[in-house]
Amino acid sequence: MREPVMLHPRLEADTQAIGETPEYWLRWMNDRRFPWGVVVPKKPGLREWHELDYDAQHALLDMVNRCSLHLQNLTGAEKMNIGALGNLVPQLHIHIIARRSGDACWPGPVWGQGTPEPWGNEQPAWLPALRDRLSQRCA
Amino acid sequence: MREPVMLHPRLEADTQAIGETPEYWLRWMNDRRFPWGVVVPKKPGLREWHELDYDAQHALLDMVNRCSLHLQNLTGAEKMNIGALGNLVPQLHIHIIARRSGDACWPGPVWGQGTPEPWGNEQPAWLPALRDRLSQRCA
Repeated sequence: MREPVMLHPRLEADTQAIGETPEYWLRWMNDRRFPWGVVVPKKPGLREWHELDYDAQHALLDMVNRCSLHLQNLTGAEKMNIGALGNLVPQLHIHIIARRSGDACWPGPVWGQGTPEPWGNEQPAWLPALRDRLSQRCA
Repeated sequence: MREPVMLHPRLEADTQAIGETPEYWLRWMNDRRFPWGVVVPKKPGLREWHELDYDAQHALLDMVNRCSLHLQNLTGAEKMNIGALGNLVPQLHIHIIARRSGDACWPGPVWGQGTPEPWGNEQPAWLPALRDRLSQRCA
């Protein structure tokens, strides 16, 4: 049996599910200011991308870049921001954020800036389409 | 003949050479506050990681993760921060930053925060060793 792995409580609180595969949790950040996905590998104790096995490093990038491509196409974002920081949440997680001129933090980074604006009972318009596109190869 | 490609003037000004391969410029950020590498693919007009061909996406990650592994080992950093932002400099470039508790921006991101502290005529202690380790496979 594999060692159990849990989504970090901070990620559990700040994000919601897009879906999951045997290898990843796919989440979206509950913040109206930005279209924002998060990919979290289901590997206990993982902190750095370079700690993964070689093929798993590539597989994680494939998932990140699929999210990036689709989120950019769905939102018409001018620029995608990809980041693996983890200074506050040590569990490795990769941010994929769709940016546009004039957004709440443009042209600066979004992490730790301003106050998140939760969606409440609504959902972003891009979410069902992103879920569909990602599920076409990772169902 | 390949289409010519130039390092963006802002990257040219803010960073210095670690080395280069046929595919990448390897640079370091001239800022005493953080051990900080930057990988820049030599591909004209490239803005997003997902725009590269599939194998080239992986090859770029290999270079980024080699920088990340060696820079962490050489500096004893608690956490590596990997980022592809490009809101100000559209040429795709990947940041690899060695972070520690109590550094000038901890636990926040470093981009756009505070004032860089240039090295002057000195160089960081980790630079020759990083150059050596990277040149062992990309000379």
